[in-house]
Amino acid sequence: MSGRGPLVLKLGGSAITVKEEPFKVDLEALGRLAHEIAESGVRELIIIHGGGSFGHPLAEKYGIHEGLRDRAQLRGLAETHRAMEELNRFVIEALLEEGLPAVPIPPISCFLTRSGRISRAFTGPVEAVLGLGAIPVLYGDVVMDEEDGFRILSGDQIAAYLALRFSAPRVVLALDVDGVFTKDPTRHPDAELVEVLRASEIKTISAGGPGRGIDVTGGMGEKLREMAPVAEAGIPVFFTSGKKPGNLLKALRGEKVRGTLLIR
Amino acid sequence: MSGRGPLVLKLGGSAITVKEEPFKVDLEALGRLAHEIAESGVRELIIIHGGGSFGHPLAEKYGIHEGLRDRAQLRGLAETHRAMEELNRFVIEALLEEGLPAVPIPPISCFLTRSGRISRAFTGPVEAVLGLGAIPVLYGDVVMDEEDGFRILSGDQIAAYLALRFSAPRVVLALDVDGVFTKDPTRHPDAELVEVLRASEIKTISAGGPGRGIDVTGGMGEKLREMAPVAEAGIPVFFTSGKKPGNLLKALRGEKVRGTLLIR
Repeated sequence: MSGRGPLVLKLGGSAITVKEEPFKVDLEALGRLAHEIAESGVRELIIIHGGGSFGHPLAEKYGIHEGLRDRAQLRGLAETHRAMEELNRFVIEALLEEGLPAVPIPPISCFLTRSGRISRAFTGPVEAVLGLGAIPVLYGDVVMDEEDGFRILSGDQIAAYLALRFSAPRVVLALDVDGVFTKDPTRHPDAELVEVLRASEIKTISAGGPGRGIDVTGGMGEKLREMAPVAEAGIPVFFTSGKKPGNLLKALRGEKVRGTLLIR
Repeated sequence: MSGRGPLVLKLGGSAITVKEEPFKVDLEALGRLAHEIAESGVRELIIIHGGGSFGHPLAEKYGIHEGLRDRAQLRGLAETHRAMEELNRFVIEALLEEGLPAVPIPPISCFLTRSGRISRAFTGPVEAVLGLGAIPVLYGDVVMDEEDGFRILSGDQIAAYLALRFSAPRVVLALDVDGVFTKDPTRHPDAELVEVLRASEIKTISAGGPGRGIDVTGGMGEKLREMAPVAEAGIPVFFTSGKKPGNLLKALRGEKVRGTLLIR
């Protein structure tokens, strides 16, 4: 069932960074998205952002996705967290500039995973920030893993976890694509946007069953897998492009806009 | 009783920053202290650093010490955390440079206070970092307060909390003075260093009772109040100057060096 908690907004890393250039924020997009959030009037929300061109190069360089194998990776842990902190500063600053009371909540010290899945979480600070009428801002981060030493905890997994934990009325994901397509739209001109998707369809697709095709490239498969349990719990999840001015504003207001609605 | 947990090391903000210049790290001192930690051979430890000239100016500017009074302070919360993160990067980098596997653990997302005292803590990440043979590095930070909105949580309070929580064998504080004096040494040439202090004496002094005087200016009173329960629990606490080359090295090795030993 949909609750009365805070709306959960995921700002995709690819929507706020420049994909081609490591460690480069797309300041124009970020500023505009912050403005759209302010304009929307939604004030009870949790924001989670991805890493985009900040997180991936370091995580790859140090092989952090696979967990700890040698001690040299410990530098990678610190460096990856630092890069994510750096991106987070830009996000916090953009929100503050719009008068939104953003408070950074670094995941490295409030989440633990086991084989990459959240196993323990301390949500007290998020609750306290919400209690002040302010906006907790989390992000994809390296976290300690009870099995593998450490792991990358994606912003998507955090968003799904918090949406369920706080009974969010809905989840909005601002991406660099319009939503979920029937085929990879960058390679297939006849790819069609899927406007409404049922969580049950995701299982069918991953099981290789019948039904329309769904593009799961470019991280979309993982996003759908993370968000399926959220939709199954009755919390609608809306995917839209954060690159197109006005989309996020409309999505936050619950107005009709191009995107994919994932429901139970 | 003294346990078999990690040694707790507090690097005083004043020992690693330049007091007269806001937001300036004393890179020479920091590099040397990191080297002394590496040289000491102590590997099972938790490091906490203070804010020094990074934390205080912003905390004062926004009146954060007194908790939340108006929403403009929310910017101060983000800015103060950012400044502390910034100092933390230098500390982490100095430790990594010495081959010490330092992992940042931002207190803002793992501690909650009530009227300024730690009320809830999530120590799982600290445990996990120690479990990997790495060094958790925490710091004085802004944290959410269950009574006052938010508060400054001092590195001293964190150090005392973790020493008790992890049954540290001992606590070492590297300061910008030699230790505890009978009078303010900057004003009284006849001030004497107190080499051994009993926790019970701190109570006597704060109650205005008899006994030798103890200088409690410059934050020393608060440090003693934080550390008294640690000493009372049987964990010896040693105060020494981090400004004097070799002091921290000797203190970590348990060798005799100028300073104050606080015991039960």
